Amino acid sequence: MNAYDHLHRLFGRLSALEDAGGLLSWDRDTIMPEGAAGRRATVMATLGGLQHEMLTAPEVTDWLGMASADGDFWKQANLNEMKRIHARAVAVPGDLVEALSKAGSEAEMVWRKARADNDFKSLLPYLQTVLDLTRESATAIGEALSVSPYDALLDGFDPGMTQQAITPIFETLARALPPLLQEVLEQQASVGGIPPVGSAPFPIADQEKLGVSMMRQVGFDMTRGRLDVSAHPFCGGATDDVRITTRYETDDFLPAFLGVIHETGHALYEQGLPAEWQGQPVGRARGMTLHESQSLLMEMQVTRSRAFATFAAPIMASAFGGRGSWKPDDLYRRMTRVSPGFIRVDADEVTYPAHIIVRYELEVAMIEGRLALKDLPEAFNARIKDMLGLDVPDDRRGCLQDIHWPLGLWGYFPCYALGALTAAQLFASAKTALPDIGNEIQRGEFSNLLGWLRTAVHERGSSASTQDIISAATGKPLGAEDYLRHVRARYIDGER
Amino acid sequence: MNAYDHLHRLFGRLSALEDAGGLLSWDRDTIMPEGAAGRRATVMATLGGLQHEMLTAPEVTDWLGMASADGDFWKQANLNEMKRIHARAVAVPGDLVEALSKAGSEAEMVWRKARADNDFKSLLPYLQTVLDLTRESATAIGEALSVSPYDALLDGFDPGMTQQAITPIFETLARALPPLLQEVLEQQASVGGIPPVGSAPFPIADQEKLGVSMMRQVGFDMTRGRLDVSAHPFCGGATDDVRITTRYETDDFLPAFLGVIHETGHALYEQGLPAEWQGQPVGRARGMTLHESQSLLMEMQVTRSRAFATFAAPIMASAFGGRGSWKPDDLYRRMTRVSPGFIRVDADEVTYPAHIIVRYELEVAMIEGRLALKDLPEAFNARIKDMLGLDVPDDRRGCLQDIHWPLGLWGYFPCYALGALTAAQLFASAKTALPDIGNEIQRGEFSNLLGWLRTAVHERGSSASTQDIISAATGKPLGAEDYLRHVRARYIDGER
Repeated sequence: MNAYDHLHRLFGRLSALEDAGGLLSWDRDTIMPEGAAGRRATVMATLGGLQHEMLTAPEVTDWLGMASADGDFWKQANLNEMKRIHARAVAVPGDLVEALSKAGSEAEMVWRKARADNDFKSLLPYLQTVLDLTRESATAIGEALSVSPYDALLDGFDPGMTQQAITPIFETLARALPPLLQEVLEQQASVGGIPPVGSAPFPIADQEKLGVSMMRQVGFDMTRGRLDVSAHPFCGGATDDVRITTRYETDDFLPAFLGVIHETGHALYEQGLPAEWQGQPVGRARGMTLHESQSLLMEMQVTRSRAFATFAAPIMASAFGGRGSWKPDDLYRRMTRVSPGFIRVDADEVTYPAHIIVRYELEVAMIEGRLALKDLPEAFNARIKDMLGLDVPDDRRGCLQDIHWPLGLWGYFPCYALGALTAAQLFASAKTALPDIGNEIQRGEFSNLLGWLRTAVHERGSSASTQDIISAATGKPLGAEDYLRHVRARYIDGER
Repeated sequence: MNAYDHLHRLFGRLSALEDAGGLLSWDRDTIMPEGAAGRRATVMATLGGLQHEMLTAPEVTDWLGMASADGDFWKQANLNEMKRIHARAVAVPGDLVEALSKAGSEAEMVWRKARADNDFKSLLPYLQTVLDLTRESATAIGEALSVSPYDALLDGFDPGMTQQAITPIFETLARALPPLLQEVLEQQASVGGIPPVGSAPFPIADQEKLGVSMMRQVGFDMTRGRLDVSAHPFCGGATDDVRITTRYETDDFLPAFLGVIHETGHALYEQGLPAEWQGQPVGRARGMTLHESQSLLMEMQVTRSRAFATFAAPIMASAFGGRGSWKPDDLYRRMTRVSPGFIRVDADEVTYPAHIIVRYELEVAMIEGRLALKDLPEAFNARIKDMLGLDVPDDRRGCLQDIHWPLGLWGYFPCYALGALTAAQLFASAKTALPDIGNEIQRGEFSNLLGWLRTAVHERGSSASTQDIISAATGKPLGAEDYLRHVRARYIDGER
């Protein structure tokens, strides 16, 4: 075996272990008996530890130094990914990885109680430890990659993404969104209330059947995936076995329905990755920004459109035995209702970026040492007031609401909003490439759209950067224009 | 870390990987989408390959040579197990392991078709390859352990078990069983037919509820396990997460019910292993013979008793809405119906050992080179005629019925019958130790019995040999007497 072949085999094995972990993690969050939690943590930590040992073994450095891609584009891209993954892994000493993981687990536990008790002070020392260790780790990785600490964190979730790329985009949004939101709210107020759609209760079995039929309709391959139930919906599982989850309430079918569509967007990306590079780094999804773009393209751009409402309303009516009224226009209005609120995960597509921009500004300041943690609540609330016009009543609905920082996930938040912008930009290009797409959606035909996404995003795997994939697909770098145009078109001018 | 600590850590990690494999295997056999099969095989092969590499790494030999148990009984037993596992692993060259695994997979596929087509000849060359490789492997392991090739195979399923121990027991059975079976059949014929118990259909949801309630009743900890559905029932999963499966038919509830009880017996053993040695070799179940003894003790000794029928009949009646007749005596007679047949897995407890004895004699002869594979069908049919008085009509119902030999599992069959004998011997001792056990079972009280099994078998883990555990629990070495006495008591003299 030459050096490249050694690496190919090593990363193939790492990918198999990652799939094992993905399935065990899915199992833990869906069907695991509660008494198995302790042992499961041991099993998963063992898998993670082995992966780290295998990746950082001394011979890997030698192989990476000697390996050649023989001029092959995909092999070269694969080798580049291997080098990036390896550089990140060896940059951080093992005991720092362990300390960070331990501090994150502790802070998470304290956070659960602190959030319930609305008690930021009790979390503060634990969060400080996690932040200190995260900064130490980010500095080490940043030195290895020759980037700033915050960019090193970003790179962990969206390889190659930089503060320099994000900041101007978010500044544009921060200026444009507050007045736009005002306009949207005035517009909505002028139209009046929305009649109910359907009639509760909506039996879970019917919701599940509807969900699975929609998954199939948009192109999910049920022979290589599943739909199940979990407390927090996610898309997980393994290669060729992409498992999404949702949660059901019987008094409203829309949250689960839109959740299933959202996770299906993630799943279509995973199912569409380049098959010939299965199990290799270059065969993986590019990062969190593009991943979120695929879920939001399906959920926000496609499903909350008037065309989709026209297609879906009669199918929903029939799924629930026709009880109640099922006017497409009412369904559309329900799916596009805008209402500023405190909780990020409950936000609509117009107010969502504001939640992210606030977090982004603050987390950059924390990593750069410009914001002390004790000042976080006040700073958080002030920026929410600026962006959404809301007075945060308590930290539970403020800076304590998210699990990300206690877990040490600084650098993750921006990907959510970048995903929304990318979704808008990709869908605008898809509409240009597929002029009849609106009518196709109204007829429930998604194969042309999926084909376009396959070529533009899915099949590229990690063979290029997020930015390059977006530019190649849309003819321009990632920006906020298409998103802002979309919001104006849908919420002010009136979507056809 | 000293040498023992290194070994403790290594085997702890191996155990975690084994748990990962156990859960992935459970998942594959219950809920995996079909299109994931190829990738799942890769993931599981990677886990298996890693375990083998870690176990056979050069430093492990050094550690085993240096490690001391410091006079601690359990540490010493743990070290002994490590040495045994290691000796087996290093005895067989990696390419032979791989060749055997590949040949087994090929032969399994050919066997599926050969069985369906009743075509032994088409399987012959593939089975020959598996047998040749198995003999080569058995010879290598036998040399390492200083035992015969067949004992080396036995040791893989029931460590320490030997042909020398088995043969006289099976010879006793082979003499006693045919005339005993005649007596039983005459006795049964004199009593006449059995009225139906309950009234079909038996809804699957009701069967499952009944199964779970019985699992709990006999002591299964549902916070550390599950009951699910699979094509072939099994007990699997992982440490602290013992998962049993069954399959349901709506026209009869008994097969699933007895299957659940059987697998619960296996599960109680797993759930009762010594917690302080979790993840270490000495903390594992001793082997297939004791494992099967636990399932058969619950299914055959306890559940098919008159006392249990008296307890269970009203519960079953209520589980199925009281439809039909639910006389305890009819239920008991149905559970103890004896009927010689061709298929091993459908056999009752009186005829079952005959199926095993035939296979044992033949598989020893195959491994010792005294029986050519081309002569297997004829030899098989002749011995079935001797033991059960049946003329095997075709190989599908003869030597082609089991998957074991195509998979290379010579040495496995005897454990089934040894388990039945062990179950009878253990239960006879339990009855002596717990004189009121019959009344307890009739009242649905199983905690004293479970406590006795915990002490006698479960909590001993792998700290002693199968033979020593049986001797310590029953005061005598494993034999056929208690089993034969049980059969005579239940089927001829009439069980109270």
